[in-house]
Amino acid sequence: MISESIINSKKYKIPEVNDDSLSINKFLDNHKDSPVVVVQGLGFVGAVMSLICSNALNEEYAVIGVDLKNKENYWKIESINDGVFPVVSSDKKIAKFFKESQRKRNLYATWDPYAYSKADVIIVDINLDVDKESSKMKDLISYDVNLNPFRKAIKIIGENCKEDALILVETTVPPGTCDQIVKPIIKEELIKRGLSSDKIKIGHSYERVMPGPNYIDSIQNFYRVFSGIDKKSEIATENFLKSIISTKTFPLTRLNGTNATEMAKVLENSFRAMNIAFMVEWSRFAELAEVDLYEIVKAIRMRPTHKNIMLPGIGVGGYCLTKDPLLASWSKQNMFNSEVGLGQSEMGVKINDKMPQNAFNFLKKNISFDLKDKKILLLGVSYLSNVGDTRYTPVELFYNCLISENAKIQLHDPFVSYWEEKEMKVNNSLNDVLAFSYDIIVFSTGHNEYADNKILIDRLIDMDNLIIYDTIGILNTKEITLLKKKHVVYVLGRGDIK
Amino acid sequence: MISESIINSKKYKIPEVNDDSLSINKFLDNHKDSPVVVVQGLGFVGAVMSLICSNALNEEYAVIGVDLKNKENYWKIESINDGVFPVVSSDKKIAKFFKESQRKRNLYATWDPYAYSKADVIIVDINLDVDKESSKMKDLISYDVNLNPFRKAIKIIGENCKEDALILVETTVPPGTCDQIVKPIIKEELIKRGLSSDKIKIGHSYERVMPGPNYIDSIQNFYRVFSGIDKKSEIATENFLKSIISTKTFPLTRLNGTNATEMAKVLENSFRAMNIAFMVEWSRFAELAEVDLYEIVKAIRMRPTHKNIMLPGIGVGGYCLTKDPLLASWSKQNMFNSEVGLGQSEMGVKINDKMPQNAFNFLKKNISFDLKDKKILLLGVSYLSNVGDTRYTPVELFYNCLISENAKIQLHDPFVSYWEEKEMKVNNSLNDVLAFSYDIIVFSTGHNEYADNKILIDRLIDMDNLIIYDTIGILNTKEITLLKKKHVVYVLGRGDIK
Repeated sequence: MISESIINSKKYKIPEVNDDSLSINKFLDNHKDSPVVVVQGLGFVGAVMSLICSNALNEEYAVIGVDLKNKENYWKIESINDGVFPVVSSDKKIAKFFKESQRKRNLYATWDPYAYSKADVIIVDINLDVDKESSKMKDLISYDVNLNPFRKAIKIIGENCKEDALILVETTVPPGTCDQIVKPIIKEELIKRGLSSDKIKIGHSYERVMPGPNYIDSIQNFYRVFSGIDKKSEIATENFLKSIISTKTFPLTRLNGTNATEMAKVLENSFRAMNIAFMVEWSRFAELAEVDLYEIVKAIRMRPTHKNIMLPGIGVGGYCLTKDPLLASWSKQNMFNSEVGLGQSEMGVKINDKMPQNAFNFLKKNISFDLKDKKILLLGVSYLSNVGDTRYTPVELFYNCLISENAKIQLHDPFVSYWEEKEMKVNNSLNDVLAFSYDIIVFSTGHNEYADNKILIDRLIDMDNLIIYDTIGILNTKEITLLKKKHVVYVLGRGDIK
Repeated sequence: MISESIINSKKYKIPEVNDDSLSINKFLDNHKDSPVVVVQGLGFVGAVMSLICSNALNEEYAVIGVDLKNKENYWKIESINDGVFPVVSSDKKIAKFFKESQRKRNLYATWDPYAYSKADVIIVDINLDVDKESSKMKDLISYDVNLNPFRKAIKIIGENCKEDALILVETTVPPGTCDQIVKPIIKEELIKRGLSSDKIKIGHSYERVMPGPNYIDSIQNFYRVFSGIDKKSEIATENFLKSIISTKTFPLTRLNGTNATEMAKVLENSFRAMNIAFMVEWSRFAELAEVDLYEIVKAIRMRPTHKNIMLPGIGVGGYCLTKDPLLASWSKQNMFNSEVGLGQSEMGVKINDKMPQNAFNFLKKNISFDLKDKKILLLGVSYLSNVGDTRYTPVELFYNCLISENAKIQLHDPFVSYWEEKEMKVNNSLNDVLAFSYDIIVFSTGHNEYADNKILIDRLIDMDNLIIYDTIGILNTKEITLLKKKHVVYVLGRGDIK
């Protein structure tokens, strides 16, 4: 029996009792006049959403975060109740908000679905994953969406919620989900319990969370799109969002129905994923033509219509861009009976999945020696700069490629102590890792600590002959020129500029 | 023997003499202290470039435009000398600039390459086409780039130019062209004439011309990227550009070598073409899911990182986006010996070439009747709103699809009197075309005349039952609601919203 939930070597004993109603009631007794918000899922979105609701702009909510009582998730529950916020972030507002929540004692976490029965608003922030079948070298062979865990989570809400609650889905779902799945499940469960199925309100409003220094602001001070399954759902969703988001500065956009907002979310991420993929072939072209694609992109970005053309790089990671185009394509075929999916959007994912291998091939093509036993330092394992998030990080495939050639690898990341997916420790101190000698040093994540860092450049120059490989264009021309006097420097997407 | 050049039914007799040196010398005698700029090619870019040079910001140039003495081009030469600017435009600055050029008498046009021998600066604004082989329904079967006409034009410059002239290439070329083609041809010709091959200056700076109301500003008041084959070429190019462009407001960007600027141009257009293509599959998805993709795009565009996501539509046309990704892909394979081209960028062109057929299929799917003998009005034949330019207009394939089903078609466009590619007259008067009755009226170009036009909407409502088909999302929700009371309305990329 699983009885422990472990995070950062801290162990939490998972309680055996299922009932937490006493504590929930006690918590709510202290907030008798407050509307109750229950957040389902305490991950990268849900945890922060709970904070934002407990620090709402013009309403005092009693907020309960709910997650599962299992090995992967239980620690978040106890961590919150323990006074330790479960997400480590470079955003200082996180600590500030959490401190305020503790002062007000209006944030509680639990595993007991009983919480839903008390909710005026239930926010759905659980995962909805795409199961990818890929080769070892990340060729996407097939994929599928298993909606059952999502259905089950919605059913639990339906089994417990008040008949007139607002259920606000924030999870990125295949378009059609609120209408074809959430609505019927909730209504069925209400009817089973002899309640009215007409009073329930279901809204959809997707988040645009960016973990990192503006974590809180990416929710509270940013544009939002919303919809509802009917007029009363729309109004309830709008009113709730107005209580937690600065809608005067960032006006809400209402779309006509949940299909529309669900599509907007996967469309914006597919757009982004495809635009990242687009640069892969051009990086190879730039290397061949011996030009600097970073310089070219900078010049093109001066056009207002081309501001968001992407830079070359090692790849794309994280939870969203690596799957959302597939969610969309799956929906088109499975929820709207199209014979064809979204080929171009799918291709974006396929190309991006292989990007780190391109980065590896570029290194292999340039070096003449065998990588066996070569000492390699990877600077950065996170998928995104200035964030400690290794989910689907492109560094993983790059790392695997190096390992498959029996290289010896040292890892550094200022934000990651433990690489969960690889079950490996990561060194946080640049000073420590630079004490060793290497054959190759790779810039693999664009953390600020590596940019314009004179001390780092000086340390590199002091080292014995080595190969420096910048996969993300973090080195500027001056730094490259300096480093080239002593070392060999390769930059992905940048030909050997004279 | 071809002896006439015809435009707008005006006939120009093509002179039989090849020598125009007397007139050229006479023109230059009046501008003894002015540096001489010769523009090669008097098309959509070259004609306006001539105007801009003859109205330079801080230099008095004597400007000679050169084009070929053939049926297609001769009229432009005589037209300029006749006091009629060869490009019709909605930009009022065009007339103002041309009037000023006439007052100063510093703009002359000729066919005689003798002009190049007098030039301090030669600007290359000729075409460089991609030969596409496509099926009738615009499936791209193969394509090729024939550089010979371009080589020939460059050779003529080399045979005539001063040894220290600045040759500024503005033509969109396959990356590698200035370095691998222009430079060797010019140097070879200089050596043949016993001149130095070291003093010549060759620069590349691509235009970002947008015909339409900001035609002049899209050159004079916009960002520019430039490069040169060596330091002195770079400096000469920069100094020349500073004399014609408002570089204080729109600083120049220097890139490292002509390969880089050539790549920048085709990259920015490939980016755009692919982003247009991207919306095709999503339009079908939106129609299936019965949501309004225009509304969704508007919501997504609120994100600064997603401002340029494209709208659904009938297709993309014009001279650039329909070929530049192919130029790039061709270059990668033929000038840089890559085994693979730019697959994703090529796919952008392929999808876009078929877009009008998608628009046609959407109509066919919705209507139940045969199109034979049905009266159809197309509102707009130009490829772009508020511009009279039918080159590669998507309306052509849409028109061909209708014709293949034996529909009877009436054409309207406020900016096009004669559709050259189809050799057909186009009615300019909305009032005239609305006097007839139709079965289907199609919005096919987004001209301002069709947008928020209450009189047009009222006229449509007054008509007998008809089908209104908006292929470009020009009708707003209020107009659609009004029109739906009487007629059937379809909008591409917009499901049947309740």
